Order: sequence, then structure tokens, then C-alpha cells
Amino acid sequence: MPQLPTFADVRAAADRLAGTAHRTPVLRSRRIDEEVGAQVVFKCENLQRMGAFKFRGAFNALSRFDERQRDAGVVTFSSGNHAQAIALSARELGMPATIVMPTDAPASKVAATKGYGGQVVTYDRYTEDREAIGRRMATERGMTLVPPYDHPDIIAGQGTAALELFEEVGTLDALFVPLGGGGLLAGTALSTRQLAPDCRLYGVEPAAGDDGQQSLRSGHVVRIDPPRTIADGAATPSLGEHNFAIIQRDVDDVLTATDDELVEAMRRFAATMKLVVEPTGCLGLAAALARRDDVAGQRVGVIVSGGNVDLDRYATLLADGPSPT
Amino acid sequence: MPQLPTFADVRAAADRLAGTAHRTPVLRSRRIDEEVGAQVVFKCENLQRMGAFKFRGAFNALSRFDERQRDAGVVTFSSGNHAQAIALSARELGMPATIVMPTDAPASKVAATKGYGGQVVTYDRYTEDREAIGRRMATERGMTLVPPYDHPDIIAGQGTAALELFEEVGTLDALFVPLGGGGLLAGTALSTRQLAPDCRLYGVEPAAGDDGQQSLRSGHVVRIDPPRTIADGAATPSLGEHNFAIIQRDVDDVLTATDDELVEAMRRFAATMKLVVEPTGCLGLAAALARRDDVAGQRVGVIVSGGNVDLDRYATLLADGPSPT
Repeated sequence: MPQLPTFADVRAAADRLAGTAHRTPVLRSRRIDEEVGAQVVFKCENLQRMGAFKFRGAFNALSRFDERQRDAGVVTFSSGNHAQAIALSARELGMPATIVMPTDAPASKVAATKGYGGQVVTYDRYTEDREAIGRRMATERGMTLVPPYDHPDIIAGQGTAALELFEEVGTLDALFVPLGGGGLLAGTALSTRQLAPDCRLYGVEPAAGDDGQQSLRSGHVVRIDPPRTIADGAATPSLGEHNFAIIQRDVDDVLTATDDELVEAMRRFAATMKLVVEPTGCLGLAAALARRDDVAGQRVGVIVSGGNVDLDRYATLLADGPSPT
Repeated sequence: MPQLPTFADVRAAADRLAGTAHRTPVLRSRRIDEEVGAQVVFKCENLQRMGAFKFRGAFNALSRFDERQRDAGVVTFSSGNHAQAIALSARELGMPATIVMPTDAPASKVAATKGYGGQVVTYDRYTEDREAIGRRMATERGMTLVPPYDHPDIIAGQGTAALELFEEVGTLDALFVPLGGGGLLAGTALSTRQLAPDCRLYGVEPAAGDDGQQSLRSGHVVRIDPPRTIADGAATPSLGEHNFAIIQRDVDDVLTATDDELVEAMRRFAATMKLVVEPTGCLGLAAALARRDDVAGQRVGVIVSGGNVDLDRYATLLADGPSPT
């Protein structure tokens, strides 16, 4: 059984993040309230530094390094928002960061990671194991490995978004949270069970990769092939161990959303709320719209996890399909 | 000489708007700070109700109606954000609203105005005069005409955005404000001269329609043919009379931005700040980027006026041109 973080760790993370992370706005739209048939509040982590909640966990983890760890630096593996979060956090804290990314990672993500000062090491995703590379570099060079979600400090940091949300709006009847490896959902669970114990808490993952739902319902971590979905931030093969233990204990259910539902939610965010939200960030709204009957008349929260999407890709997704009215 | 509103009118408008208009967030981006070479704060009126600052002025004007005026209702002419602002404000205040719109107005704008309960009357923009139609309806049916910008209550209402901005961030060295008919700029001037008297205040209009710049420099209102620009919210033929009187007294200069600069700013807003901003709303950032040398190291404000842009059009504008790095 792994050592699990607690709400006290979330509080401590919030203290470390104060003045460095944005306290992101909580936004509302009466139009969307009408469409969902509920009062909906959105915690906008797409407006977080580097464009996603991932900065919270990464900065929290790195700010706990001791002097020896800071000198040797951090290593991680990620082709997504965690890469940028680690690179930016390391720069803020004045330590070197090495990011293991696949050779075919999008040029924009590689450029963004380098732009924050991260050193990028590439690997062939078809023949090499990124975790093994990360571990080897950690061992050989004395660097500390900080994985994307399966880590107590990452989970505690991600929990600060929901902490801020509850501080601002009080309790809620239901809360919808994007689910990939489970860092955001597990952290949110710690804050929810402390600050809004009666709130129904839902993880939402891509329908193409419902390993989280299978895991929760079967009682053990289910591993699947990496799913094909536009929600690249949630295209994970399995939940982390720490994450699953908390999710199993504290989360009411795991729901799914199809890519079509994500595109529809993305278009609503743009047309109605004037927010650029990446596909993964649309999981919560998509699920709330699909479960209108369950949340009718209630106070509902949605965590918008991020907004990092290549502009050309975003333009293509917006242009397909009908305009929201 | 028209009766000009004062800062006291802006304060009174703020009281009327409290609890009805959103107090929109002030957002920052360190990436954009680096690009401009200054500390830049954005007052995000694209996140205002109905997607633009126009709600402030419209609601302020309508909330001052007496009982007789409320019974007969409001009439206005607009094919843009003012139409939706009047329709929504009238609905909030329980009075009828008639909007005179051109027969070739975008279907999305007509639908949005009707969606807020406005009654739409169409006219042929090539053979009929919308102002005359509005005045005739006002006379014949006892309705009160509320024009889009040349009105003291509209100006006072629009000034509340800058009032909130200064309350939140203190004084600034320079402030960039989109300029069409001059409602937002004149209102902003009232708040600026009271709350940040030394702040340099700039209106920014489309380069294709520089009537505001010509007016300020010549000392009288210059009228031009409606300009061809993607900044449809600022494609006005001339400043209002009230507006010009305040702008001439209180504004330091009027700058211009080209359509290409607006598209570049729009792409930066999407990629870096995750905000959907309509072309007119990009005028301030475009000017700040163009005047890097003048604002180097200073504290700079930008008012983002709105985010109402047809999604297909928005997708097309995003897809053209290079990605911001």
C-alpha cells in the first residue's frame, strides 16, 4: 500500500504555490446554466500558468526538493502538459530539468518545453521504454524522477484547484473532473471530502479509454492499450497506484465522454464562454451536459483542466460541426 | 455643447450594475509581458455577460427609465453587440425591446438578439436610414431610443469597466482602449482621469477607419465612409458628439492597428491566454505590441472589449498565418 497524501498535504501545497501559481478565476455562464438545467461553476485551469493545472503539482513536488536534489535537478517523461509544467517549475526554482519526450512529439510541445528552459531528450516510442530511460537517468546522474501523476506531491498540488474552488463558492452538489492518470481527480478528492463531504464526485475519461471506469468497478487497476481519442491529456493506459487508492476510496463514479461530445463542449466554451479549452479540458462539461437529469436544479462544479491545443488543430475542430445556438 | 457625464455618473452606474453585470476578471500572462516588455493587465470584457462591455452601458441606460418608459419599451439600431446588450438588459428589467437591424445582418447576431427576447425589425441598409427608422418608431409608439454610444448613460455605464480595473490593480502608466463610436473610450476616460490622472490614455481604432485619429488631431468630428475592416465593432463612420467632447478633453492620442495586427493579436490571445477575443477586442493588445518602445518596463492596461465572433469565421482567422511561439 503506497503512502497516500492527505488534505493537510493539499493545504501545505497551497501555501507553497501562493504567489507563484495563478489563483484561477471561477466563471459562470447563464446560457450554460440553462443548457445544463443547473447552476454551473467552472474552475478555469486553462487560465493557469503554462495553460493547465499541471503547474500546481509540478511546482509543489519540485519545491520540496532538498539542496542536493536541486543541484542535480529533475527528470521526467511526458509529451504533454506535465513536460511544460516541470520545465517551468524548475526554471522558477533555479534547477535543471530534463524531459524525456518521444521523437514524434508535436513540435509545438517540444518548443514550449525548451522555451521554459527544459532540456529535451528524445526516445523512440515504438522501441524504447520512457520510464526505463527516466529511471536510468535518475540513477546514473543523481537526478530525481517526478512522474506525471503517480506521486503524493503531484496529487497534493493538483488538489489545490478544488481547494480554491470550494473556498470561493462553498459546497456543491456534484463536481465533474477530467480523468487521465488520476492526479487531478485524486487531489480533487482530498479537497472535496474535507470541504464538501456530501458532494458527488465524478471522474470523466474518454469513452475510447475507459480504464478508470473499469478499474473503479472491478476494484483493481485495469491497464489498456493507449486509447485513440482527441483528449490527448487523458489518453493514459492506466491509473497510478496512489491515484487509484484515493479514487477508489473517495470518488462516486467514473463517467465517459465521446470525442463528438468533447468537440461539442469545446465549441460551447468558445462560443458562449469565450474560452479556449483543450479536448481533455472539455470532459467535465461534456459529462454534465450528458447527465442533465441527474443534476437538474443543483449546484454543479466543473474543473476545466487546460487549454493547450495547437491552434491549427483547434481551428479545425471548431470549424467542424454545427454552431452552438 | 451636449451635457456630458462625469465620474459621479460612472460610480452611480457601477451601483446599478452590481449583482447584474459580471465583475470581469483581470488576467495576466508572463509570456505576453515578455513580448511587450512591460507588465500588462487585461480587463476581460469578453467574459462579460453577452460577451462584451456593451451590457454595462445598455443596462445602465435602461435601468434609469421611468415607469412610462418601461411600459413602452426601448428601441435601438445596431447589427452588433449593442443589439444583444439592449435585448438582454430589457429582458432583465422586464420591458419590451425593438432592435432595428439590416436585412443582411449575420444570422447568428439576429438569432442571439431574438434569443434574449428582442423584437427584430429589419431594414435595407442601402436604401433606408436606420436612425430615421429608430426615431420614427420612438415618436410613433412612445418608445425610448437608446443609441449605441452617443448617450451620457451609455458612456457612464461603459466607464465601469475601467473603474473596476483601477480598483483592482491601482494606477497604470498607460491604458489602451478599443475605439469605434467612442462609448468605451469616453467612459474609460472619466474613470482614468479620476483614478489614475497621470495614466496615458490611448484609443485604438482600425487603420482602415482612422476617423477618430483625424477627429482628435483636427479638433472636430470627422466623418468617413464605413471602413472595411475585420474589426466590425469599430467600423463606425464617426465619433459621437458626447464621446468626442470627452475624448478631446481627456485622451492623450488615438492609435491605429491593421487587420493583420489584429489577427496576430487574436492568435496570441488564443494560444497564450486561452481567450476567444473578437477582432475589435484585439485593438488594445495590437497597439501595445506596436508601441513596445514607449511602454518598456511600465505598467500597462489593455481593455479587451468583447469575444463575439462567429465560430466559423474565428476558425478561419486562427488557421491563417503562423502560430505564435
